[in-house]
Amino acid sequence: MSTRIVITGGAGFLGAVLARRLLDAPVSLGGAPVEELGELVLVDLFAPPPDLTEDPRVRVVTGDLITALAGLGPVDAIFHLAGVVSGAAEADFDLGMRTNLDGTRALLEYARGLARPPVLVFSSSLAVFGSDPALGPVGEVDDDTLPRPQSSYGIQKFIGEQLVADYTRKGFVRGRSVRLMTVSVRPGKPNAAASSFLSGIIREPLAGIRAACPVPPDTPIALSSPRKTLDGLLRAAEVDDTAWGSRTAMNLPALTTTPKEMAASLDRVAGPGTSDLIDWTDDAGVGAIVRSWPARFHTPRASALGLTPEHTFDDIVRAYRAGLD
Amino acid sequence: MSTRIVITGGAGFLGAVLARRLLDAPVSLGGAPVEELGELVLVDLFAPPPDLTEDPRVRVVTGDLITALAGLGPVDAIFHLAGVVSGAAEADFDLGMRTNLDGTRALLEYARGLARPPVLVFSSSLAVFGSDPALGPVGEVDDDTLPRPQSSYGIQKFIGEQLVADYTRKGFVRGRSVRLMTVSVRPGKPNAAASSFLSGIIREPLAGIRAACPVPPDTPIALSSPRKTLDGLLRAAEVDDTAWGSRTAMNLPALTTTPKEMAASLDRVAGPGTSDLIDWTDDAGVGAIVRSWPARFHTPRASALGLTPEHTFDDIVRAYRAGLD
Repeated sequence: MSTRIVITGGAGFLGAVLARRLLDAPVSLGGAPVEELGELVLVDLFAPPPDLTEDPRVRVVTGDLITALAGLGPVDAIFHLAGVVSGAAEADFDLGMRTNLDGTRALLEYARGLARPPVLVFSSSLAVFGSDPALGPVGEVDDDTLPRPQSSYGIQKFIGEQLVADYTRKGFVRGRSVRLMTVSVRPGKPNAAASSFLSGIIREPLAGIRAACPVPPDTPIALSSPRKTLDGLLRAAEVDDTAWGSRTAMNLPALTTTPKEMAASLDRVAGPGTSDLIDWTDDAGVGAIVRSWPARFHTPRASALGLTPEHTFDDIVRAYRAGLD
Repeated sequence: MSTRIVITGGAGFLGAVLARRLLDAPVSLGGAPVEELGELVLVDLFAPPPDLTEDPRVRVVTGDLITALAGLGPVDAIFHLAGVVSGAAEADFDLGMRTNLDGTRALLEYARGLARPPVLVFSSSLAVFGSDPALGPVGEVDDDTLPRPQSSYGIQKFIGEQLVADYTRKGFVRGRSVRLMTVSVRPGKPNAAASSFLSGIIREPLAGIRAACPVPPDTPIALSSPRKTLDGLLRAAEVDDTAWGSRTAMNLPALTTTPKEMAASLDRVAGPGTSDLIDWTDDAGVGAIVRSWPARFHTPRASALGLTPEHTFDDIVRAYRAGLD
């Protein structure tokens, strides 16, 4: 029997990259033998890129997640990437609650209804951490750090982790919550995430376009390349329950850098002066959110699964440029 | 203008004791001046004791919480004690989710709809902590310990804390989540809580009735008397937002003891041989839940608000006996 996988948010940037990776090679799920991918279902509000829709193994379900779940049928694994991003969840509280909380709960109920509990990889976020106004900045984060979310997005992701943990404990799903770092460099357009500029200040100058950096150049930032983020999602799906271990969410590895160092990488990789296209501005709103996130991570649990951060931001810029060809 | 307060779970043991305390003396809420209590609304599935229903300031609303919210009107403070207890939430997953999660969310939405955000004291629980099977027992818990709930009840309470924190951050309520310890000695009958025996082994022998202790005599236990638990709930309601501080839940102080020490207290206070009515049994199910809870708490945040644990279990037995008269 061949494997059937669902990706929610399957038309987004990470969803599409993950889809391509799954279509490229046979997959292993939850410690089971490697199998051919039979069907890959991409659920999203909009259609995925044409290379995906044209693959005969891909089924596209366009529409609201909660509605889409009704017709999904049995599945071996789910990658739950769908969600409203940080800025949007902050601007529209009810939208964030409906999509990020009710959507995740509906997905878990769908999985619970299946005859065999699927592997479920839930993409949580470093945004579960935040500097508590009564307590000050978050220091280095390790696997035992108490999240104190300071945004609706962070709260909704943290609640999602708790639901995934309990549905797993009850045997309804085989859940694995991974906390993604800010992904840079994302291709495409800016989005409503407060972290959007961390891709923009590289992507836009490489395309000859000006881009704003709304935080001071020396603001410490934890981030991860798309490929290292994918490694984390796939590794979470692949390992058996014992190797995965605790039902508490796992922090993925991060590279700690600053916008200033990112600009220097850009100049080293793409040529001196490329970063002159960055406008160093100051947006108090974005700055407050970004500074509330931790910038340093110690991730022994992820290391034990063989996951590593990128060594330098230069590598990230190089990989992004290579992908443009 | 006189003060209006709602207690959900207002007919339960803690709810009724809290109601009597609020009716006895003027109250202060969120740092505002002390005021006369105008109306006290007790919401529960069943009616409160007659002494409460007969007080002209008490309004009783009997029925499902979510339905009851429709007619509540403006309110200055809410004590949210209603919920399905640990054993019941474990036995009936959907009931626990509906009551403990959907009920809390509906209450927060009701509060959000009011013209002036009420003070909301949310009774969370030490059950948010649990020993992760992949990581082993929880050591001493302090104000920064990461909860890893190992029961549906614990998960639902921890999610409630997150919702209260975000509704507070958004200015919809003035929330304060307090984590209650196991309350002993509760009067009345055993209930479906896994911790029920921690009252039973004192209450039943004092009434000349046999009672089972389903865990080994030297099992470490964190508990709190009813009066110290009330002190915590009232202090949370009373202080201003700055004194309350972090939106993260606050652990209440606990007395660490064992069933063996509790039995010795019983004999010291009520006479030698009283504890002969305890049957020392071994229930693997109850034992697993109770042992997953931490037994030692370091609570500097609660101390800073003037909250203290009982000094000895003898004091607790004495206070319980005095209350029987």
